[in-house]
Amino acid sequence: MEFVHCTPMNIGLDMMGGDYAPLEAVKGVAQYILENSSSVSLTLVGDQSSLEPLIAEHKIPSNRVRIIHSEQVIGMDEHPTKALKEKQQSSIAIGFHLLATGKTDAFISAGNTGAMLVGALFSIKALEGVLRPTISTIIPKENGGTGLLLDVGLNADCKPEQLNQFAVMGSVYAQQILDIKNPRVGLVNVGEEEGKGNLLAQATYPLLKENKHINFIGNIEGRDVLIDKADVMVCEGFTGNIILKLAESLYEVGHRQQIKSEFLDRFDFEIYGGTPVLGVAKPVIIGHGISGAKAFKNMIIVAQKMIESKVLDRMKEELE
Amino acid sequence: MEFVHCTPMNIGLDMMGGDYAPLEAVKGVAQYILENSSSVSLTLVGDQSSLEPLIAEHKIPSNRVRIIHSEQVIGMDEHPTKALKEKQQSSIAIGFHLLATGKTDAFISAGNTGAMLVGALFSIKALEGVLRPTISTIIPKENGGTGLLLDVGLNADCKPEQLNQFAVMGSVYAQQILDIKNPRVGLVNVGEEEGKGNLLAQATYPLLKENKHINFIGNIEGRDVLIDKADVMVCEGFTGNIILKLAESLYEVGHRQQIKSEFLDRFDFEIYGGTPVLGVAKPVIIGHGISGAKAFKNMIIVAQKMIESKVLDRMKEELE
Repeated sequence: MEFVHCTPMNIGLDMMGGDYAPLEAVKGVAQYILENSSSVSLTLVGDQSSLEPLIAEHKIPSNRVRIIHSEQVIGMDEHPTKALKEKQQSSIAIGFHLLATGKTDAFISAGNTGAMLVGALFSIKALEGVLRPTISTIIPKENGGTGLLLDVGLNADCKPEQLNQFAVMGSVYAQQILDIKNPRVGLVNVGEEEGKGNLLAQATYPLLKENKHINFIGNIEGRDVLIDKADVMVCEGFTGNIILKLAESLYEVGHRQQIKSEFLDRFDFEIYGGTPVLGVAKPVIIGHGISGAKAFKNMIIVAQKMIESKVLDRMKEELE
Repeated sequence: MEFVHCTPMNIGLDMMGGDYAPLEAVKGVAQYILENSSSVSLTLVGDQSSLEPLIAEHKIPSNRVRIIHSEQVIGMDEHPTKALKEKQQSSIAIGFHLLATGKTDAFISAGNTGAMLVGALFSIKALEGVLRPTISTIIPKENGGTGLLLDVGLNADCKPEQLNQFAVMGSVYAQQILDIKNPRVGLVNVGEEEGKGNLLAQATYPLLKENKHINFIGNIEGRDVLIDKADVMVCEGFTGNIILKLAESLYEVGHRQQIKSEFLDRFDFEIYGGTPVLGVAKPVIIGHGISGAKAFKNMIIVAQKMIESKVLDRMKEELE
């Protein structure tokens, strides 16, 4: 018998985060509710007087949302730790408080990325046994599929044991959220053969090879990132961040160069919503600063899927 | 008064290296000679009985080339150090011997990359003061220009002082060979601000900032690699190799996806010829295994330019 989620789900959303907040966040909520007749309730954290008319305007049914008023906003350029500490009434601080105290089951924001990371790491406990949480990104594959790349910037310096855990967390996420069966895990490296690479990659390879919780296929190179070779691509956050931002720029380049390509169109990050923080005990999703309605809607869908699939429980099991 | 090159230049070429050798190498030589009426002589190292009929067939004038017979070939998959040691009569071993003894002024091969690197590092002295030689690649920029990325794989683990030298060598190469005036040097990193990055990038930033031999513009991110931000992009060889191979794959992806784009067409490595090894005392250029005639021709042009511009002497001066 499948264990089902009994209490109604409640997803918290920072309505003040991102360059186009709160309008695009409200539009995203409206689209989500229109398309998803589920029992998910949304907790919208933001300035009440701004939100109420927008919610009315976009005909959002009041039984699906509740507003939690926040008086402050953490700006995109504020120092994360300082801002979180000083702005206890900010939408991000309140959002994490609601999540930490069980008032919501997930938290989403397109606001200050650093503040979201600090909040995730310090307001929410790490999953038992996790050395370091990680963030990942979807990489569109040429054959129409999707891959998962991690870490993409939370951990610029890593130890082999951390990469080994990223491989497990990425595998579980790929299975549960991206619906990839038995995902192939590749170690991002400079050559195909075992023994290639920098000291970190050399030391990580044997750990991945011996890890029975993953389907390790060996090293993958830069040329393999965009093709259907590995479903989960593991590296430290320095290399991963460079790959992520280079991949994101392909969409912009394609757009500016007026290149007609369905493949390049898929590098539009809005399709995928945001980046979940993996390895913390509750679902936290960080959106891009320039998130529009579609991105907000898709972040809510990812959060819902993370709760429904109990992906974090599965990670915990696989890491044991 | 400009100091001119008095003795005739002689460029050595491994005719047996690469997947399409010796035919494409011969065709490249023929094209070079046809288009360049200079006083450059070419020393062609390879199997005499294979080369002679091809040279006749492609009407290569005998006063511009001489053949040095080699009996062995180092295969693409052979162990570099072992092969170089055991195959003293291979085209690569002979080519390096000619270069080391002053019989040629440069050496080019599209053969076993590892053997070329080992040969460059051990047959040819490092430039005085160089901690570690490096290899670079051209990165096409969206605005039509070109950037130089280094290191792209010779040094998977680096020290800050090495990156600082790569910045100088890359700057001199960009000025002398790519004709970029006062090239902007960027440190490949995960964020714009000083203090961002992994331990290596954090420690490298102040060195680049204080380096009076370069025009340091600060950090550049993955999104800046393809745009006109920095002319010389500095990183360790792990990240650089991933970027290089990802960039190379863009050409293949574009081709397979039938994307019409002048920009993506410029990711065809044949346009740029090969990769010079920077930091050794004589010009050594390594071609891609699948080099065709155009790549061979362009490698000879780069070698000629490296000799004429005395780029290695300039590097030595700037590193002092």
